Amino acid sequence: MRIAVVAPSCPLKREAAEAVQALVRERGDCELVIHPQCFLSDGHFAGSDEERLAALRDVMADDSFDAVWVARGGYGSNRIAEAALLDLPEAAASKIYMGYSDAGFLLAGFHKAGLDVAWGPMPQDIVRSGGAQAVHRALDWIVRRDPAALEPALDGPAMAFNITVLSNLLGTALEPDFTGVDLLLEDVGEHLYRIDRAMFHVSASPAVQKVRRIRLGRVSDIIANDPDFGTDEGAIVEQWCARSGITFGGRADIGHDAANRVVPFPRGKR
Amino acid sequence: MRIAVVAPSCPLKREAAEAVQALVRERGDCELVIHPQCFLSDGHFAGSDEERLAALRDVMADDSFDAVWVARGGYGSNRIAEAALLDLPEAAASKIYMGYSDAGFLLAGFHKAGLDVAWGPMPQDIVRSGGAQAVHRALDWIVRRDPAALEPALDGPAMAFNITVLSNLLGTALEPDFTGVDLLLEDVGEHLYRIDRAMFHVSASPAVQKVRRIRLGRVSDIIANDPDFGTDEGAIVEQWCARSGITFGGRADIGHDAANRVVPFPRGKR
Repeated sequence: MRIAVVAPSCPLKREAAEAVQALVRERGDCELVIHPQCFLSDGHFAGSDEERLAALRDVMADDSFDAVWVARGGYGSNRIAEAALLDLPEAAASKIYMGYSDAGFLLAGFHKAGLDVAWGPMPQDIVRSGGAQAVHRALDWIVRRDPAALEPALDGPAMAFNITVLSNLLGTALEPDFTGVDLLLEDVGEHLYRIDRAMFHVSASPAVQKVRRIRLGRVSDIIANDPDFGTDEGAIVEQWCARSGITFGGRADIGHDAANRVVPFPRGKR
Repeated sequence: MRIAVVAPSCPLKREAAEAVQALVRERGDCELVIHPQCFLSDGHFAGSDEERLAALRDVMADDSFDAVWVARGGYGSNRIAEAALLDLPEAAASKIYMGYSDAGFLLAGFHKAGLDVAWGPMPQDIVRSGGAQAVHRALDWIVRRDPAALEPALDGPAMAFNITVLSNLLGTALEPDFTGVDLLLEDVGEHLYRIDRAMFHVSASPAVQKVRRIRLGRVSDIIANDPDFGTDEGAIVEQWCARSGITFGGRADIGHDAANRVVPFPRGKR
């Protein structure tokens, strides 16, 4: 099993790359090829749009890779996601693609294009406390589809998104078909008023209203509201579900942390 | 001319209310009735959804008011905007509605319902440096449609929105018809990566792509990006316009500041 790592948004830290390579050597069940593009830097991004796109398209078209693993989140994969899907080579369809957070723009578009995508931990997660377990969990899914890596309450087709990322892809060419899926949501580093505003937007979407239900993962590192917002993220999501006629299915085991689980998207039509 | 002030999002500061009343007394050309709801507090909001909605609907239905002036921005008008438009009383159609920032949710929905709305300064702007001029500018438009209050380069139908607010109302019941309008945008207190992400979302909207052109007001109090984003707000908006086939019409004289000008929306169909 050969796995390519590219960085469609922000640069991968050298120490994270080295730690993940050491972990992979210890596992002995796969080979990780970290594309040099991961270490480029161009303002906010891991190289220019052209450089990030070229690296992504390179590994997608390379038959020797069985998986494309997004190095990390941040911001920027939306800037190249549509272009990455043009004239898809056959080799692109024989791989699994994994990432989360900002990589949700890619997951959405790649799913829509009929590729095999999964929400799950990324190489840079290794720098988190307990991050080695997160990286093992991702690789357990990529290498041998180990069910222990999965979000534990999955019981049908599901997708997972960061709330803010989802809000920003609705109505764009990347918007997937949510019909009948469990939509697992999470967020990090936002004020609660922003979560409330984004959930207003997300839950009002006719596309999102086709889900089977919404389940809420962790909303971590919430930025303090002044004054106190008056409610919490669970009540916010439950309320917007109620207002828009979406079933709220309770909490989910995903988030911006080392406990983040894998959520494979249903395979879309090519 | 009787003007009602209500607070559909966050509470109005007492000192702002007093300063605006003093300014109005000095002008002598209008009477300002500040609804007691403006000073309520319920978590983030100026009273519960029910209290804010009741105050807004009260003044909309009151024939003795010629204008409804939104006290301030913040967050929360989206939570009551749709309900405010149900069973519109006839008296609601004989008024002008003014505000900006978060009040854009109301402007959008009220415009869509055929009401007379305008982007412009709000009572709480008086606490800004030079804020008295902003308040005079708003009143000059509300009371006597003084053309000197207008954004100076308007030359046809126009609308103005905060980028983040606009991004969050697209696809909702509040989304107005942008066909043929100059769309003036501004923002405040965001990272440039968020402006870039929101412009990706806004410019991808088929509804927004019907505008005549986009013009960019001020993007103020930008939160530092680490590392430096690599470009500025003007280049960001110009680039997303180019990518989505929208004409970029240059800069506009609006923003979260005392120089913010008035942008009347075209009168929608009732």
